[in-house]
Amino acid sequence: MIRAAIVGATGYTGREVHYWLSRHPSVELVSLMGSGPESVRKMVEENPDLDASLCEPFSLDTLAARKPDVVFLATPPEVSLQMAPGLLQLGHVVIDLSAAFRLRRPEQYDRWYGFQHSAPKLLEQAVYGLPEVHGERIRDAQLIANPGCYPTSLLLALLPFVRQGLIDPSCPIICDSKSGLTGAGKNPEYVFAEINENCQAYKVGSHRHTPELLQELGTGDDVTVAFTPHLVPVNRGILSTIYLRTRQQLDQEELVDLLRAAYRDRRFVRVYDNGRLPQMKHVVGSNFCDIGCVAQEGTRLVTLVSTIDNLVKGAAGQAVQNMNLRFGLNEALGLIPGVH
Amino acid sequence: MIRAAIVGATGYTGREVHYWLSRHPSVELVSLMGSGPESVRKMVEENPDLDASLCEPFSLDTLAARKPDVVFLATPPEVSLQMAPGLLQLGHVVIDLSAAFRLRRPEQYDRWYGFQHSAPKLLEQAVYGLPEVHGERIRDAQLIANPGCYPTSLLLALLPFVRQGLIDPSCPIICDSKSGLTGAGKNPEYVFAEINENCQAYKVGSHRHTPELLQELGTGDDVTVAFTPHLVPVNRGILSTIYLRTRQQLDQEELVDLLRAAYRDRRFVRVYDNGRLPQMKHVVGSNFCDIGCVAQEGTRLVTLVSTIDNLVKGAAGQAVQNMNLRFGLNEALGLIPGVH
Amino acid sequence: MIRAAIVGATGYTGREVHYWLSRHPSVELVSLMGSGPESVRKMVEENPDLDASLCEPFSLDTLAARKPDVVFLATPPEVSLQMAPGLLQLGHVVIDLSAAFRLRRPEQYDRWYGFQHSAPKLLEQAVYGLPEVHGERIRDAQLIANPGCYPTSLLLALLPFVRQGLIDPSCPIICDSKSGLTGAGKNPEYVFAEINENCQAYKVGSHRHTPELLQELGTGDDVTVAFTPHLVPVNRGILSTIYLRTRQQLDQEELVDLLRAAYRDRRFVRVYDNGRLPQMKHVVGSNFCDIGCVAQEGTRLVTLVSTIDNLVKGAAGQAVQNMNLRFGLNEALGLIPGVH
Amino acid sequence: MIRAAIVGATGYTGREVHYWLSRHPSVELVSLMGSGPESVRKMVEENPDLDASLCEPFSLDTLAARKPDVVFLATPPEVSLQMAPGLLQLGHVVIDLSAAFRLRRPEQYDRWYGFQHSAPKLLEQAVYGLPEVHGERIRDAQLIANPGCYPTSLLLALLPFVRQGLIDPSCPIICDSKSGLTGAGKNPEYVFAEINENCQAYKVGSHRHTPELLQELGTGDDVTVAFTPHLVPVNRGILSTIYLRTRQQLDQEELVDLLRAAYRDRRFVRVYDNGRLPQMKHVVGSNFCDIGCVAQEGTRLVTLVSTIDNLVKGAAGQAVQNMNLRFGLNEALGLIPGVH
Repeated sequence: MIRAAIVGATGYTGREVHYWLSRHPSVELVSLMGSGPESVRKMVEENPDLDASLCEPFSLDTLAARKPDVVFLATPPEVSLQMAPGLLQLGHVVIDLSAAFRLRRPEQYDRWYGFQHSAPKLLEQAVYGLPEVHGERIRDAQLIANPGCYPTSLLLALLPFVRQGLIDPSCPIICDSKSGLTGAGKNPEYVFAEINENCQAYKVGSHRHTPELLQELGTGDDVTVAFTPHLVPVNRGILSTIYLRTRQQLDQEELVDLLRAAYRDRRFVRVYDNGRLPQMKHVVGSNFCDIGCVAQEGTRLVTLVSTIDNLVKGAAGQAVQNMNLRFGLNEALGLIPGVH
Repeated sequence: MIRAAIVGATGYTGREVHYWLSRHPSVELVSLMGSGPESVRKMVEENPDLDASLCEPFSLDTLAARKPDVVFLATPPEVSLQMAPGLLQLGHVVIDLSAAFRLRRPEQYDRWYGFQHSAPKLLEQAVYGLPEVHGERIRDAQLIANPGCYPTSLLLALLPFVRQGLIDPSCPIICDSKSGLTGAGKNPEYVFAEINENCQAYKVGSHRHTPELLQELGTGDDVTVAFTPHLVPVNRGILSTIYLRTRQQLDQEELVDLLRAAYRDRRFVRVYDNGRLPQMKHVVGSNFCDIGCVAQEGTRLVTLVSTIDNLVKGAAGQAVQNMNLRFGLNEALGLIPGVH
Repeated sequence: MIRAAIVGATGYTGREVHYWLSRHPSVELVSLMGSGPESVRKMVEENPDLDASLCEPFSLDTLAARKPDVVFLATPPEVSLQMAPGLLQLGHVVIDLSAAFRLRRPEQYDRWYGFQHSAPKLLEQAVYGLPEVHGERIRDAQLIANPGCYPTSLLLALLPFVRQGLIDPSCPIICDSKSGLTGAGKNPEYVFAEINENCQAYKVGSHRHTPELLQELGTGDDVTVAFTPHLVPVNRGILSTIYLRTRQQLDQEELVDLLRAAYRDRRFVRVYDNGRLPQMKHVVGSNFCDIGCVAQEGTRLVTLVSTIDNLVKGAAGQAVQNMNLRFGLNEALGLIPGVH
Repeated sequence: MIRAAIVGATGYTGREVHYWLSRHPSVELVSLMGSGPESVRKMVEENPDLDASLCEPFSLDTLAARKPDVVFLATPPEVSLQMAPGLLQLGHVVIDLSAAFRLRRPEQYDRWYGFQHSAPKLLEQAVYGLPEVHGERIRDAQLIANPGCYPTSLLLALLPFVRQGLIDPSCPIICDSKSGLTGAGKNPEYVFAEINENCQAYKVGSHRHTPELLQELGTGDDVTVAFTPHLVPVNRGILSTIYLRTRQQLDQEELVDLLRAAYRDRRFVRVYDNGRLPQMKHVVGSNFCDIGCVAQEGTRLVTLVSTIDNLVKGAAGQAVQNMNLRFGLNEALGLIPGVH
């Protein structure tokens, strides 16, 4: 059994990590940590599903005493940045669900996150935890930077084209993403009546997931990328519609073949054929990323639709998938019923 | 007073036409017609706001007896196509909210609507009722083809760029639209639990509003246009996110200036400055089209956000605006409080 | 023209008062007041429909200079309590949408609102602004206490039974109300993902509308009343399901007759017959209160369903209706199209 | 391993049975049956989670060939009624999720369901599958009539009071239930825009769950019971607010004690203390029934709030719980993580 602890078990992400770990056949939960006694009290009161005996305020000593094999940090980036070095020194595997270790260049934290990165060495060491891309490195990682939800949905659809050199650089890549509200946490700006019966684009050109997306795409200055996140009135789910132009015309079948070849041995990416397109409801509650594609005849324009549950494949589920890989288990263990 | 009749007063569109006409200071409603007695009975029972004494089953004779100056057709295109010739012959002004007279080339009806157009002469005579573009011709029109909701939101944002020759034809125009469900009518496929907590792209490359959009854009084969409609779980509203590349780099202020200049004397298009973007909730319930814009530095890529209420500016409100123009009234009469 | 000012024009209630007044044929808006310059700046920015030239920070002097005939207070009760005395002294009619003047017994403010009432004399003078009940007194009132949304929906259904002495006091009156979220204002506790896909009872036995309901029902200690408010994930609307037992068995028709007789000359209460029941959607956006009733055979138990738009008949619309009465106009002027 | 088959795997209920069975550690799914080839094709296409190799059209012979230990019927009552006798004769345990075998008196089917019951003998044999009440009989049952969703939420809250003789029969029991839309199946009347932003009572006094509720309450003609179902715009969940009067005054703590004592050894009923009330979101996705209670001082009136997921404890989860009991397993196996 893998002994696992969660720090920040009260937010949407932390609760979702708990959801999956508590159902995982090879995991023993050893601690659910809130930031302080009041936060722990609320955590227990509001979540009848939590085992109250495991809930406790965070301290490095308490955590060490629980002897976890792996610690999931579901904390803001500033907090993860403070906590991770100590935890790594104690020998725990750290899976950080914040952005604190996703960017390789420390100066980007000044610009995009507004703080100076205090552990730039760890940025070199951290592995970007997108299992379908960095699976091999994840197996040996001590510090796993779990990807953002938007980049997960976008990279899984785009990377097969990038890696095959298929993208026509004279045409921008357009990433138009629609997200549910749990992705925004409990932001008091988003009271119900302001979001319900509404739809909006936000942070156009300035969303924090942009540098992470560009870094992992790896197309550098060659290709213009536009990323526009939107809020739609649902709790969970991201649906990204992506537009790109290929160097040569591909037909519908070739698109499906390309995508299927890229994920031949992967359980969590499902490619739809015959022009069928995935909907949010096909993936909500699961760790799947479903991808559909449409070729526009004669124009080399490709439309991709990629959808995930932002709290699962976009956060907690992917974190568990990373844990599985890191500890030598089937990556789908505890995530797909019937997997051993 | 303008004597107005509505045919098809039970659907979402017809009811919305009734909503605006019943509040219009210069309109007298003379008939609300359903397809038959049963439909009229339901119309009265389900809509306590309707004046039951005006509700009656459709017949050309009954309608003629009501002596309307203008007839609003809120009927399917096949039905509008049947009704319009007779009404025109009787000398009524016809404002058709279906697509029956929007396309200039009759053969497009075979391809996109699945029927042969029985009145191709009327296609030449009909005026496409986008008042901000065809205002002058609308003043003299006998048959007004009220635009589709998606094209309205897209054309108002795009046409200023097209008319100024600003669009770089080497880059596709991407139209990513998100729509509420009243746009789809009472389609039984869209039961609540299939739409709620869901988001989906649909009819990619095959939506019926495509030929109308291309015809009115007028860019022909020069520019690739992609149009992807999506359903989001709201009742009303369309929010279109549009991506295009300009021939030269424009900055934020130049974009705002361009758009504002195009709609200098128009009441219903509001252009947001300083990178602020409109949200659906800013226009729902009104006849406004709100447009925001973002310039991406150094790439000539422009992101536009254009939003309307699909039942108002996208249907009934625009129809009333067309009626106002046609009968020599202020185009905003009955649509904006305080206008005389 | 009635010169009208709104204090607190940024909240849901104040914006809704603006909505109706700006469409009212006999009203001239003379001032829209926010609490301070920052609040005014946001008010203008977020509401493209407001006339920016009327927006200004509150001060008694500024307000006096605008010479309003009537001032609508869409402010918290503590603020209304401070403002009203000065406004009344200046001779303005005051329509207060808060609870500051609804309760006749000052000591109830200590218990239910947590403050000592500083103007108990005004409680004697204030008229409870339920036009269907206190219409005569409203015509002469200087200070109108606009009712709460829940009591409005409940009283209009219950009072016909109370006044006819029909209620069996040995059986409790059960008031089970379901409300949309605008009734709760912009409470940061109610972020989208906590309310969406959820339903909850709240403040059972402790909601502040309870004393107001009991006072106006006037049944004193004779009858047990239970009031349970619930939140349902909609923006607007209250639907109250009410259960009571009558002294003698009434059949379906007798129930309808009783209710219709009570509101014979009133425009805003619509009684449904044949066991048909009103739904929220029948009243949202209007000032109507729709009531349906079901008699349970042989048990003397009556189920009533009463529904209003909490922001219209439950707040702003009723306030305008009160203004109409106070200034000698048709009570429906500006609230129902076609009324003069 | 228990070999399980599902008939009617395409509806909301059947899909939910599949969800839980496919995650159950002691179950092997042997067949997922649709009504015919077309229905099977759609089932596979729309549900990427189904194992397509198990999907097949229903026939008794095919089903027998799969040698199931238990067959779950997620079919309309008329279909269940036809299928069950044959399946029982073949020796399969049948868990029927329809109402076909819930009522003991065959003549009630004429009145409430509009068909004559063709197998009245089976009504005597069938066990009403509410495990917290009929657990012992379920262990030996060959035919289990899985309860309706509304009665489940109501009976679990009410029966402790009934069995202790605590209910004051001179006061009616009021059952005011709010339900999500999956409870209504894919009824085309319930298109999105008619349900969203709406709330309605329906079938007051005539809902089919009424006779089932009365039968299992067992209070006969002694007590008046009113049951009013409502639709609220959520996908899943029932929240029932129940009002009753006790013979003597009970305080808050006594209420909690009474309820907790009734479910001392049961995993799936959680009783909230200190006046805290459960919300739909606390149970959605789980097999729990959460109950809260409020005592109104001095009036003997008790308000209970009982909430379940209509598809889990109200249908599929309860069916699995029944299967567990029937096959000698821990009733929570496969329903609560960590149970063996």
